[in-house]
Amino acid sequence: MHNPFVPETLEGWSVLHLLYRFDWPRLNSCSAPAREAIAAGAVTALEQTMSGDEAGATAFVQVLGHKADVMLILFRRSFDDLGRAELALAQTELHAYLLPTTSYVSIVELGMYEMTAKVHRLVEQKGLRPESEDYHAAFDALMAEQRQRVAGRLFPAIPAARHVCFYPMDKRRGELQNWYSESFERRAEMMLEHGKIGRHYAGKVTQIISGSIGYDDWEWGVDLFADDALTFKKLIYEMRFDEASAKFAAFGPFYIGLQFAPPDLGKLLKGELPSL
Amino acid sequence: MHNPFVPETLEGWSVLHLLYRFDWPRLNSCSAPAREAIAAGAVTALEQTMSGDEAGATAFVQVLGHKADVMLILFRRSFDDLGRAELALAQTELHAYLLPTTSYVSIVELGMYEMTAKVHRLVEQKGLRPESEDYHAAFDALMAEQRQRVAGRLFPAIPAARHVCFYPMDKRRGELQNWYSESFERRAEMMLEHGKIGRHYAGKVTQIISGSIGYDDWEWGVDLFADDALTFKKLIYEMRFDEASAKFAAFGPFYIGLQFAPPDLGKLLKGELPSL
Amino acid sequence: MHNPFVPETLEGWSVLHLLYRFDWPRLNSCSAPAREAIAAGAVTALEQTMSGDEAGATAFVQVLGHKADVMLILFRRSFDDLGRAELALAQTELHAYLLPTTSYVSIVELGMYEMTAKVHRLVEQKGLRPESEDYHAAFDALMAEQRQRVAGRLFPAIPAARHVCFYPMDKRRGELQNWYSESFERRAEMMLEHGKIGRHYAGKVTQIISGSIGYDDWEWGVDLFADDALTFKKLIYEMRFDEASAKFAAFGPFYIGLQFAPPDLGKLLKGELPSL
Amino acid sequence: MHNPFVPETLEGWSVLHLLYRFDWPRLNSCSAPAREAIAAGAVTALEQTMSGDEAGATAFVQVLGHKADVMLILFRRSFDDLGRAELALAQTELHAYLLPTTSYVSIVELGMYEMTAKVHRLVEQKGLRPESEDYHAAFDALMAEQRQRVAGRLFPAIPAARHVCFYPMDKRRGELQNWYSESFERRAEMMLEHGKIGRHYAGKVTQIISGSIGYDDWEWGVDLFADDALTFKKLIYEMRFDEASAKFAAFGPFYIGLQFAPPDLGKLLKGELPSL
Amino acid sequence: MHNPFVPETLEGWSVLHLLYRFDWPRLNSCSAPAREAIAAGAVTALEQTMSGDEAGATAFVQVLGHKADVMLILFRRSFDDLGRAELALAQTELHAYLLPTTSYVSIVELGMYEMTAKVHRLVEQKGLRPESEDYHAAFDALMAEQRQRVAGRLFPAIPAARHVCFYPMDKRRGELQNWYSESFERRAEMMLEHGKIGRHYAGKVTQIISGSIGYDDWEWGVDLFADDALTFKKLIYEMRFDEASAKFAAFGPFYIGLQFAPPDLGKLLKGELPSL
Repeated sequence: MHNPFVPETLEGWSVLHLLYRFDWPRLNSCSAPAREAIAAGAVTALEQTMSGDEAGATAFVQVLGHKADVMLILFRRSFDDLGRAELALAQTELHAYLLPTTSYVSIVELGMYEMTAKVHRLVEQKGLRPESEDYHAAFDALMAEQRQRVAGRLFPAIPAARHVCFYPMDKRRGELQNWYSESFERRAEMMLEHGKIGRHYAGKVTQIISGSIGYDDWEWGVDLFADDALTFKKLIYEMRFDEASAKFAAFGPFYIGLQFAPPDLGKLLKGELPSL
Repeated sequence: MHNPFVPETLEGWSVLHLLYRFDWPRLNSCSAPAREAIAAGAVTALEQTMSGDEAGATAFVQVLGHKADVMLILFRRSFDDLGRAELALAQTELHAYLLPTTSYVSIVELGMYEMTAKVHRLVEQKGLRPESEDYHAAFDALMAEQRQRVAGRLFPAIPAARHVCFYPMDKRRGELQNWYSESFERRAEMMLEHGKIGRHYAGKVTQIISGSIGYDDWEWGVDLFADDALTFKKLIYEMRFDEASAKFAAFGPFYIGLQFAPPDLGKLLKGELPSL
Repeated sequence: MHNPFVPETLEGWSVLHLLYRFDWPRLNSCSAPAREAIAAGAVTALEQTMSGDEAGATAFVQVLGHKADVMLILFRRSFDDLGRAELALAQTELHAYLLPTTSYVSIVELGMYEMTAKVHRLVEQKGLRPESEDYHAAFDALMAEQRQRVAGRLFPAIPAARHVCFYPMDKRRGELQNWYSESFERRAEMMLEHGKIGRHYAGKVTQIISGSIGYDDWEWGVDLFADDALTFKKLIYEMRFDEASAKFAAFGPFYIGLQFAPPDLGKLLKGELPSL
Repeated sequence: MHNPFVPETLEGWSVLHLLYRFDWPRLNSCSAPAREAIAAGAVTALEQTMSGDEAGATAFVQVLGHKADVMLILFRRSFDDLGRAELALAQTELHAYLLPTTSYVSIVELGMYEMTAKVHRLVEQKGLRPESEDYHAAFDALMAEQRQRVAGRLFPAIPAARHVCFYPMDKRRGELQNWYSESFERRAEMMLEHGKIGRHYAGKVTQIISGSIGYDDWEWGVDLFADDALTFKKLIYEMRFDEASAKFAAFGPFYIGLQFAPPDLGKLLKGELPSL
Repeated sequence: MHNPFVPETLEGWSVLHLLYRFDWPRLNSCSAPAREAIAAGAVTALEQTMSGDEAGATAFVQVLGHKADVMLILFRRSFDDLGRAELALAQTELHAYLLPTTSYVSIVELGMYEMTAKVHRLVEQKGLRPESEDYHAAFDALMAEQRQRVAGRLFPAIPAARHVCFYPMDKRRGELQNWYSESFERRAEMMLEHGKIGRHYAGKVTQIISGSIGYDDWEWGVDLFADDALTFKKLIYEMRFDEASAKFAAFGPFYIGLQFAPPDLGKLLKGELPSL
């Protein structure tokens, strides 16, 4: 059955954000070459849990402030692959210098308000009886077509931008303003308005949304990538005034950092600013 | 007295969720055979607190992210048996490598909105005077019959599915929307609607509800088991739009992981992905 | 002056709940006789801070889950006596194996809604001028009489039941539903209804209420004792539908455990299930 | 300018509450004379940061429960003096046995609702043009007079009572009931009613209010001193029904303890009940 | 596009607040000269990450209470520079004596309600077609002019005042009172009123606002600097009654401390009050 209240979603990478503080006093007691070796060992271990680009990717981010020193964003094919990578990391020498602070489990998701309405219309135009076998077949065929079309957004590469902003969020279920009690049309309308603001920032920021209902404590995770860190503040501030955010968004903690190339992990461990 | 506001409930297994992080640096300093021995010792200790399948079961889950490395779900006949198992685990060698992060105490529960209404009707049809001795006897007989009928759901085996999702929840008592101030009929209606969505996922997901009023910080614990992790997200997202969830559900933290066969605990301790 | 909004209360034992986790790895490195000696030392130390039954009592509870391994409930004559007991415990060998997780400070309290109304009526029937000296003398005499009558409930012995449930709670002060803005009569009415439900469980559960306004973070602490752990769930669930709870109760964390006889503390430290 | 919405306040001592748990295992490994020496050193160090009674005072409180073992309340002339005392304490031998749990920074404050209205009236009676230089001079002169009159309450000695209760609080800013949106007159009225209840407890309890807006996480800190611990519960319970508290008070954590004479700190460290 | 709901903002320094507790027992085991050397090393390391005044500044603050012993406020040209400074600090000897408690990431921001309205009017007066290329060019030119005019407030020096107060804050998005749903005009009006109160304290307090949307858990960080600590309490209390604060401000934790000159860090480590 296709629940008329629920927008269809398409899913891609399984995602694991891992945030750690370094045990600096112990790291500082290692020689520079030792730190390079520790870093190289960890990068290799993570790579060995993947076979080829198809298998996933890992972003490395130096996080500002006390919340973490480093954030790893793992894109993989399945939760099994995430579990395998997490265990591989636990076996590295680096792991003994890591103090886990938080993490986030999710799956890359495209929420398809416009698409859902469109697919429903197309199926209806064909005159199919709702919930009949033909109806489901037609629906599934159209969704598969869409999935093909947006495959690049479901399984994106890590955007090559210096700044990374990550935060989880919910749609609010207040006693007076409850996203989940709004009609499909109102929600679609608000998401459309919300999306328009985002499009003004096209080229300046890349956004990857992942769904975490059933996997973690918030409903969605948002990763933003930009060359200019100001873009995050401008974008999110402007969005805060649109109805979908102003009335219905609840935000979790924000994490901000500097993305760097995996081979530069050794520089980070030595206290030198790594670069992308 | 049978309080007309309160749905009857039937109870089964006493349940204890135990979540731990591993002390990886110390585990990693053990040889592979030592880790196998540590694992075997813990599995044996837990088994020895039970005598036969009737006595209970234990699920082993590798948890993703920082919240835990492993979750044990203990089904037992009583809180005494849970206490005995928890102490047995504390005496194992493994326990010295475990850092407790959280836990959950509950009892498998079937909330019987439909049943309660039906039993009330049946008893009334027999023309019994409410709260008379005959009335109570008839009521108790019907409940015992039901208990027999649903015994398999009160004392289920651990579902043999790869993915496990656990979360606690409440029914909200807001100032404007208060589940416990709604009439029995409205609540029964909403639970019926809620249940219908669940039934569309029959065969894809197995759900075990346990009640924790008086035992832990939320009113219920929910365990979901599925082969495909996407099922959790699809199911819970769809349910979030039904009235019982949209208006009245408050959710605690979510835990997601990979179930594995107890003999594979040694693989987990060695950093290899265990399988079911 | 007798504030007409405020129900009179009568007070008994000073109460201190102390919850600890065990440092199991270090405990496990002690021999069995050593653990017995550690336990005996702690029990003796606590006893030595009392002289006779009049001086108080201590309940020992094995707590389920990660919140604690053991809960001690101290009933004493005064806060001085509680302070003395806490210090005595700190000097024991056991204390080095205890990791404090939480505690609760309160005084056994009987909230007298019905009594207050009755005493007010009696004093008025005598035709005394409110707030006159005679009025106060008559009032105080009647209260002293009541205090005598309920002395057993103000200074109860520890109920000899296997299961113990402890939780703190508040009466809510919401913007729309505020317990403290309701009239004395409405509150008395709701407490009466609330009490009726409790009385249906008479013989199955013993309840000890203690007041903690000014002493700890919630307004009251509730200790329930029952042979059958299911009683807690049934009772609290049923109560959640009465108006006093549904609209006005806010609940803190719940602690559940197995009461045992003090001489069995040694068994607990050795990882064996202690019994009452 | 004198903002007509804002009550004038008068200020006295700078206040620092410091709460610590003891590292009992390490303390217990010290001999009795060593513990006496550790205590004496800390008391001396705190005294040396003051010169004479004018310079301040320090209260010593044994706290009940897990929140702390000891609370120090420092009254000093300035934040510089508080900083100096905190550093002096950090240099003592005792400090190595202290585990800080929480603290509170504030300044003794008299909120002058009645006074403000009165001063405004007096100034107006003199026919001064609001905000003129004469107006300000007259206002300041009247306030200085008041400050003189209440100097003893701005720079009080530590009340010599056995029991101490400390808690921080806010005035609520809810969406429907917002203290800061109420008129000056309504607030003055509610504070008057609130104060009347307090006066019924005159002689039984001494209250010291300190303001912490801009200094700590709540708006005010409240210290109560009484010989009989029951007084706190009776007083705060009764106040909870007045409008200022019922609708507008938000309370932080409560700390309860036994005040003792500084020379008795050594007894506390040896596990003996110290006395006042 | 210029979103008519959103006030323009101008940005300056990238800001990082770092708060630490000292590991006093270990610090106290160092000799006085060793502590001086540790301090000097840290000050030098932070300086070496900057080249000239243009590159930034660092404020040193002794924090009162348990939240921290020291707060560093880093003003830098970019997040890269903040990352570089944080890493440099991690490499110092001092770092091994620091226990991070919290931090805050933000960018100095001037919110330009008045300016935005004015710029919009000016551009309109020129008769430019909204969103045309000319319109944008005119708009950007006017903003650049403003940026030039307020450069000193975007890249301020550290105010030379003894007391420092830091707190983060949000504008509330309640179900009934939602800052982001108010019209631009209403918000501008409230910010104007809010600003007027601030101006009465001109000369007594210096305020630096930084924006943290997208960077940290609150929307803004506020740093206040004053010679007299009372100024903070008076100012923030008075502001709490204006509509922008009373109805719409949500406040995070408050940190209060004593600013000192960097060369005095050694005194602090030796337990002597450092001075500005």
